[in-house]
Amino acid sequence: MSKKFSRNPIKGMDDYFPSDMRVFNYINDKLRNIAELYCYEEYDAPILEAIEIFEAKTSDELVNEQSFIVEKKEGERLILRPEITPQLARMVAKISQEKKKPIRWYSNPRLYRYEQPQRGRKREFYQFNVDILGEDTLYAELEILQIIVDFLTDFGATSDQFQIYFNNRRFVDAICEILLEVPKQKISQIYSILDKADKMEESEFEKYLIDSFESESIIQGIKKLKDTNDLDELLANFDDIPSEFYESKGYQELKKLTRLIEDSEISEYCSFSSGVVRGLDYYTGTVFEVYDMGDENIRAIFGGGRYDDLLSIFSDEEMSGIGFGMGLLMLELFLRTYNLLPEDLEEPDYSKIIYIATLDEEVAPYVFKISNILRDQNISCLIDYRFENLGNQLSKANDLGVMITLIIGPKEMKEKRITIKNMVSEEQKTIETEELIQQINQILSKLS
Amino acid sequence: MSKKFSRNPIKGMDDYFPSDMRVFNYINDKLRNIAELYCYEEYDAPILEAIEIFEAKTSDELVNEQSFIVEKKEGERLILRPEITPQLARMVAKISQEKKKPIRWYSNPRLYRYEQPQRGRKREFYQFNVDILGEDTLYAELEILQIIVDFLTDFGATSDQFQIYFNNRRFVDAICEILLEVPKQKISQIYSILDKADKMEESEFEKYLIDSFESESIIQGIKKLKDTNDLDELLANFDDIPSEFYESKGYQELKKLTRLIEDSEISEYCSFSSGVVRGLDYYTGTVFEVYDMGDENIRAIFGGGRYDDLLSIFSDEEMSGIGFGMGLLMLELFLRTYNLLPEDLEEPDYSKIIYIATLDEEVAPYVFKISNILRDQNISCLIDYRFENLGNQLSKANDLGVMITLIIGPKEMKEKRITIKNMVSEEQKTIETEELIQQINQILSKLS
Repeated sequence: MSKKFSRNPIKGMDDYFPSDMRVFNYINDKLRNIAELYCYEEYDAPILEAIEIFEAKTSDELVNEQSFIVEKKEGERLILRPEITPQLARMVAKISQEKKKPIRWYSNPRLYRYEQPQRGRKREFYQFNVDILGEDTLYAELEILQIIVDFLTDFGATSDQFQIYFNNRRFVDAICEILLEVPKQKISQIYSILDKADKMEESEFEKYLIDSFESESIIQGIKKLKDTNDLDELLANFDDIPSEFYESKGYQELKKLTRLIEDSEISEYCSFSSGVVRGLDYYTGTVFEVYDMGDENIRAIFGGGRYDDLLSIFSDEEMSGIGFGMGLLMLELFLRTYNLLPEDLEEPDYSKIIYIATLDEEVAPYVFKISNILRDQNISCLIDYRFENLGNQLSKANDLGVMITLIIGPKEMKEKRITIKNMVSEEQKTIETEELIQQINQILSKLS
Repeated sequence: MSKKFSRNPIKGMDDYFPSDMRVFNYINDKLRNIAELYCYEEYDAPILEAIEIFEAKTSDELVNEQSFIVEKKEGERLILRPEITPQLARMVAKISQEKKKPIRWYSNPRLYRYEQPQRGRKREFYQFNVDILGEDTLYAELEILQIIVDFLTDFGATSDQFQIYFNNRRFVDAICEILLEVPKQKISQIYSILDKADKMEESEFEKYLIDSFESESIIQGIKKLKDTNDLDELLANFDDIPSEFYESKGYQELKKLTRLIEDSEISEYCSFSSGVVRGLDYYTGTVFEVYDMGDENIRAIFGGGRYDDLLSIFSDEEMSGIGFGMGLLMLELFLRTYNLLPEDLEEPDYSKIIYIATLDEEVAPYVFKISNILRDQNISCLIDYRFENLGNQLSKANDLGVMITLIIGPKEMKEKRITIKNMVSEEQKTIETEELIQQINQILSKLS
């Protein structure tokens, strides 16, 4: 067979070489650690799922055009999950009765979308999901925002680099219904245009408004919603606001969340923005989007919000939740923009690995014993089994960045001793086996 | 919508509730840690792959009948990978030129097979893969066997509970060709029958032999191969063994590996068995299978071996490797058989989590501050935002198994102090904020 197959993965998907895996693990470990600090528990679900539960909660376009579907098996149509939320709902519906509320869960599922790959968007990707369910107070909102702030600041990100813009869909409802008197059936159109406004030219946005709404006051109102980041300034545009508006759940929630944020230590990272509404229909209350504040392109990294109707396709139980799904590719792009990943992350770190240089094959049994002593103490070691000359082995160890090499020859084996070499100072001495761990710790503590 | 969807995942696949995830993470973390102690680097590849690379290396049955196939996208047929080895080959072929040998890689890929689910076998599963490539000496074999022993003994497994049975395909070749004088084209049949012998009744095995081979000496020879676990005993069956046999690569390799094992500290876990040959065609030298030695059912948990032709469909480079893939479900069954998993593993461990009981909503800003202090020190905490009466909150903390509760009311907030309660001794005292971390560490160290 002389024709060779391609060495590349399929379109839109990435191999994870060890260098990529180190970046992935670094990011994932940090996020998981923070989720655990907030007492969230990890879960996951199969990658393949019955297509119906996605059809019931997600757009038809996403399910039938932008997904990978498995050829029919046993009469079922299976989908490679494009998001995990319907599975979260399925699992929570199953165990909800026996669980204390609130339920705090996180996951880093692998997800699939059949769409054109682009910067930050692949056909296979990880999305870190955090959700709190069964906690109706706005402290759930605050906790979710605190987690996001901790996620990003733990990498060293600052409030100049990212902002969480928050809003409330019930508040937008109240503006539309009470202040702008928009007919009910037109409100979803307002959400749709606000969600897409970021990606539109100003003129396109204008044209869309004029084509869709007759009332000049509605058009002006939508433009203000899009552009205002200050609640008082927004409301100053309206004369004679009725008390019904101030008493509305949306206004009350927004005011209270704003106060909670001010009282917490995350206020510098959070701003109100009446233009943030989120595209997905299932959000009902608080919504938010996290933006990269970079000069050249302010862009959304990810977002989330509160949903009230999560379990309905699986259960009659009503449960409200709030959460987000953060694509790891977008996060990585953000971190790289601000140099927030350690420089040598891709490279393997051999500085704490012990290299064992062997002078003759006959010492192998003794080397096995020594390597066992090291690994029992959770110390990694690499054995050179080629029994080449010592100079070669030491220069190999040096190239890797090893700090400590053990040199084992027939003399060492006979005397049950070990020659240990500090690769930085180039000092070496011969020690008893029993001293090995202590000597290693001593050299490493001096070097770090 | 009143009809509800099923709360179960699709057939043959499992949800990972937090209790399942804790078991998975416990096992996976231990295996990864050991792989890292041997300086293996982690990799992964997409779950979807072009079907051709599996067709080229795997059986037609596995690819076309026992796999999940994605509906055609852009003219390509995609498969949900049933194993990772062809992807390992693809990735190694791509970077081999620039990498120092040997290449030590590990992965815990999620894999898919469309077959009848049964004990230890699911349609979606994890399989821990460890491979060393580009090291032709038998020290590679020894290292792989050492890793397996460490994997299992790290959970507490003993040599009464598992054994690694090893053999060498070149050695079996030499027996067949030189001692039994089996015609070349019949040798693959011998491999096939030896591999299936375990699952056959004695009489069925006999009948198959008589139907397939005419020579009584061949039939007797195959029966000895199947049943013998001692090299000398096996060879004692043959008269006048020619020196050609003793000089064969297969015999030499087997003798040398046996000696290396004897010289190492894993000899009690390893036994020769001439009946172990492995089913897959791509093994060329050493092969091994790990057996659960349980009285009622000695059964293979997993296996592996050396392959010489791994890269051929991607590259002209020749590289030999040895490795194994261990299904995590079978491993978990083995560990459960011998009670080798910690008893409370499924339950969340709240013993090191600080519970913050809050007496009034007005203290929220102070509570935010304190929870930040804790998390900055990598201490997990859970805040009760319901502001119910203290007794309720303390009994909730007790139910969870919390050791330390902080009680925060308006008095504490005003004085910038904290009431800390040891839930075991029931002692409580009010301390300064600055003392918090030290007091927590003191209580925890007393309790552990």
